[in-house]
Amino acid sequence: MIQLLAKVPGLGPRSARRAALHLIKKKEQLLIPLAAALDDAVDKVGVCTTCGNVDSSDPCTVCTDPRRDGKTIIVVEDVADLWALERAGTMSALYHVLGGTLSPLDGIGPDDLTIDQLVNRVADGGIKELIIAVNATVEGQTTAHYITDRLEGLDVRITRLAHGVPVGGELDYLDEGTLAAALKARTDF
Amino acid sequence: MIQLLAKVPGLGPRSARRAALHLIKKKEQLLIPLAAALDDAVDKVGVCTTCGNVDSSDPCTVCTDPRRDGKTIIVVEDVADLWALERAGTMSALYHVLGGTLSPLDGIGPDDLTIDQLVNRVADGGIKELIIAVNATVEGQTTAHYITDRLEGLDVRITRLAHGVPVGGELDYLDEGTLAAALKARTDF
Repeated sequence: MIQLLAKVPGLGPRSARRAALHLIKKKEQLLIPLAAALDDAVDKVGVCTTCGNVDSSDPCTVCTDPRRDGKTIIVVEDVADLWALERAGTMSALYHVLGGTLSPLDGIGPDDLTIDQLVNRVADGGIKELIIAVNATVEGQTTAHYITDRLEGLDVRITRLAHGVPVGGELDYLDEGTLAAALKARTDF
Repeated sequence: MIQLLAKVPGLGPRSARRAALHLIKKKEQLLIPLAAALDDAVDKVGVCTTCGNVDSSDPCTVCTDPRRDGKTIIVVEDVADLWALERAGTMSALYHVLGGTLSPLDGIGPDDLTIDQLVNRVADGGIKELIIAVNATVEGQTTAHYITDRLEGLDVRITRLAHGVPVGGELDYLDEGTLAAALKARTDF
């Protein structure tokens, strides 16, 4: 149990021992409910075949939510990014999880991501806008350009997240690239 | 000397003692040149009466640089922000240093900042665009709105830095406000 706990992100060998001891001491309040929750996850949680979200139903609750704007798809790298955008709570749209970014050095090509499925979803029609919300890293931007190339000829508006100063950000602590992007993309007050 | 060094930002009482000892040990290489540089700064460095930059000449070298675009003023809170934007090196414009932000709680009103001088610079004519590059904090944005109100009626385009994802930023680590701003201000790919 300790060896497996040590593989959980955020825990190391030392904290895994502490966690195991704590779980055993709090058997009724923590160990039994946690074991049941893990069993439950084994049985129920899976990946949505439409968007790649993890959920207990397939298609997931995001894909089947009738109150969402079904004409917009937000493309993200990872489920964690989907959750982050849901926390922001500004757009009620559909998602598409790529499962990573293109990275020739790590041997990750287009076939390892869900780009074909995305192209099919758009080609099926009904999608008006695709918001590419990948990370502002080199790999993310490469992937964004690849997706844009693949969707050429399809009747869909492709947008991307704005680059600029984060909310609460102080100029003195920002990198030059961000300042240059924020100056370039300045908006009328 | 140690007591004064301890008042320098980045040094505390302990590191001031270490710094003093190091200076004395390296008298020829460090102490004498540093003392001369400080004397020089006392004599020469002052605040530019036009823009508020610190420089050894008044008007400063930024204000008098003939290669700069004299029709654009970038309004910043502090000289540190001016330096940050100069490091980014994308715009070759003039600056105006406010000397802080409006903060009623700290008793900082419009008269404590160089807002009157800014309005005069714009009213004198020749300025086509004012880029308000204050920090993305509450105080910064309040100051930006106050400046915009004060400039009403004058023929100048007022813009502000774009808000969004910083370059290299990963969505999962960004706050909800930034993600919401980046989604709202999304641009066509």
